[in-house]
Amino acid sequence: MKDFTCYNPTRIEFGKGKEQNIGQYIAEYGVKKVLIVYGSERIKKSGLFEIVTKSLSDKGIAYEQLGGVVSNPVMSKVYEGIELAKATKVDAVLAVGGGSVLDSSKAISVGALYEGDVWDFFVGKTSVTKALKIFDIITLAATGSEMNAYGVVTNEKTKEKLSLGGVVTFPTVSVINPKLQATVTRDYLAYSAADIFAHSLDMYFSATYLPEFIAAHTENILNTVIRTTEILLENPDDYNARGEFAWAATQALNQSTFTGIEGNRYDTHFLEHTLSAEYNIPHGAGLSIIVPAWMKYQKKYLPERFKRFADKVFGLENADAGIEALINWYKKIGTPVTLKEGNIPEEDIPALVDKLMAIAKLWLGSEYYTKEMITSVLEKSK
Amino acid sequence: MKDFTCYNPTRIEFGKGKEQNIGQYIAEYGVKKVLIVYGSERIKKSGLFEIVTKSLSDKGIAYEQLGGVVSNPVMSKVYEGIELAKATKVDAVLAVGGGSVLDSSKAISVGALYEGDVWDFFVGKTSVTKALKIFDIITLAATGSEMNAYGVVTNEKTKEKLSLGGVVTFPTVSVINPKLQATVTRDYLAYSAADIFAHSLDMYFSATYLPEFIAAHTENILNTVIRTTEILLENPDDYNARGEFAWAATQALNQSTFTGIEGNRYDTHFLEHTLSAEYNIPHGAGLSIIVPAWMKYQKKYLPERFKRFADKVFGLENADAGIEALINWYKKIGTPVTLKEGNIPEEDIPALVDKLMAIAKLWLGSEYYTKEMITSVLEKSK
Repeated sequence: MKDFTCYNPTRIEFGKGKEQNIGQYIAEYGVKKVLIVYGSERIKKSGLFEIVTKSLSDKGIAYEQLGGVVSNPVMSKVYEGIELAKATKVDAVLAVGGGSVLDSSKAISVGALYEGDVWDFFVGKTSVTKALKIFDIITLAATGSEMNAYGVVTNEKTKEKLSLGGVVTFPTVSVINPKLQATVTRDYLAYSAADIFAHSLDMYFSATYLPEFIAAHTENILNTVIRTTEILLENPDDYNARGEFAWAATQALNQSTFTGIEGNRYDTHFLEHTLSAEYNIPHGAGLSIIVPAWMKYQKKYLPERFKRFADKVFGLENADAGIEALINWYKKIGTPVTLKEGNIPEEDIPALVDKLMAIAKLWLGSEYYTKEMITSVLEKSK
Repeated sequence: MKDFTCYNPTRIEFGKGKEQNIGQYIAEYGVKKVLIVYGSERIKKSGLFEIVTKSLSDKGIAYEQLGGVVSNPVMSKVYEGIELAKATKVDAVLAVGGGSVLDSSKAISVGALYEGDVWDFFVGKTSVTKALKIFDIITLAATGSEMNAYGVVTNEKTKEKLSLGGVVTFPTVSVINPKLQATVTRDYLAYSAADIFAHSLDMYFSATYLPEFIAAHTENILNTVIRTTEILLENPDDYNARGEFAWAATQALNQSTFTGIEGNRYDTHFLEHTLSAEYNIPHGAGLSIIVPAWMKYQKKYLPERFKRFADKVFGLENADAGIEALINWYKKIGTPVTLKEGNIPEEDIPALVDKLMAIAKLWLGSEYYTKEMITSVLEKSK
């Protein structure tokens, strides 16, 4: 077991109708005025927005609102939110939506207490020490953002998709009501499953030391995602399956899979962020294209781990069969597995390699993310 | 998935030598003076006490000390600690020892800010809302107290062993250095394993709804305990096994096994606390006596769960074989499985039943803990 610090102060309120208590949860922390951040106007049609604002009003909490956050959220919206938060002097941000809305909210909460350009935090010019309190009602299970400190946003000018975060950007309270997640489309359910898989596999297939206890914990997340995704594709209203899917998504990126490990990296996220920033494909779709290609590249470094994966997740006997089984599973649930299926021109590979090498320094550096490595994975994703 | 709240603000500092940083960890929270609580004087001979006090002094933190906490910790020591904490105006408690030391420290931290008798919190006369900050260096992996809010103490006058806790009694920082846990005796390693097992099995075999994801998580804890205990009995200095054992112990009672479940109880802890309060046997030893007897009683209510346990933990096909395998495993690691082996006179059973019925109201009430239930389990533990 390697040394680690484990600290996760987010309070999870999980269950049916818990969004009706959001005013109470927020009031417990002395907040008087929040900025509600959301995506499309659908939450107004569905009645969720009204439930939220009624709950806030009942507790005497004032609110401002900022809609229009998109998938692969962009900095222009974050800047708009920061201006609004500063102008209206809110003392917290309430994200109502999926990971994009919450990630944007984290950036807004940091930027609202910073005089400079919030992009400074994404590029490592300065580190996060202050933020408005963050609350959320998470309506899509995928990113794990509801129980971690990080937010990923795309700078649409530079086409860089990067993250910020610090101990102050853990959400204070996250509401997870699986019922609210039941309206996700079939496509996005598959992309979400692919995202959770990638959060788990980035660690699982890169950690040079992985305790058996943590390996089994991660395999439990993977098996839960496979089992519940298949149930939900048949019956989107299966509440228990929806709940387990949501909770597995949270666990995949709330540090529980990272304790005591060594040498883990975020290779597929490094590679994918540029795909979704450049082509605006869903993050999960980009990941299901990159993950199998990366596994084929990575296999030589941890052959026993790949063999174990094949056994524990798909009941198969060798590493290659495990990778094939994952590709077939992606196909079965309907998420792309090649650049072509993602409508990304294969002839763009050299330009993508250059782009990735340029931002490698913000991840692990070009010593690890070499031209050979990047090219090899992208070539395997054809 | 049933509704739940999950909130655990304890910061874990896990790893080699982390006790040397205790002064820094405590200083980060603005603490100026702590009460160091410990058990035997062994920590002075081993050098641990000096490491701790040097680290505190280096950060300008003053300290008082209270030694002599025993296994199955008692209220007289808690009262002594409360008086000392009040008289010396410490603003935090630092537990250096096992679960007994930490549990006593939690009671001291609550009592230090209370004018009445701290026993009021144990018997439910009032609830915990204030406590001094609690820090710990946990030298025995078993109780999980390092990442939960609860403390169990015996009132030696009434022979009641009860618990107190609230959101303010989560430790602020817990240091887990597996190396410090390597000196535990062979006996206590077995008792610790039995304690972790009971924390897991109380839930696993009583929850009327148990999500597959949480069932598998709990089985992972059980399998980790079996695997690492066997390694450690052979080689007490296996650091990775010691580390996984410690982390599994923490997970078994940090809420992670309780999320989304329904109807769980603490039957074996209810039954055992009176054994260790009356006969002062190690808590883990009492549990390995009670658990198999309770399983035999409980089996009829959740036959499929018992079958699953046999399969997932021991690779066996039926419920009875699973129970027998657990009994054999307890025997193998050397922890008692009958009242006789625990030196508890079988003729005391009627008196024990009366005692248990008298305190049942502080647990789930006599509607559930009937004379028939209590008698039946104790008879099976002969």
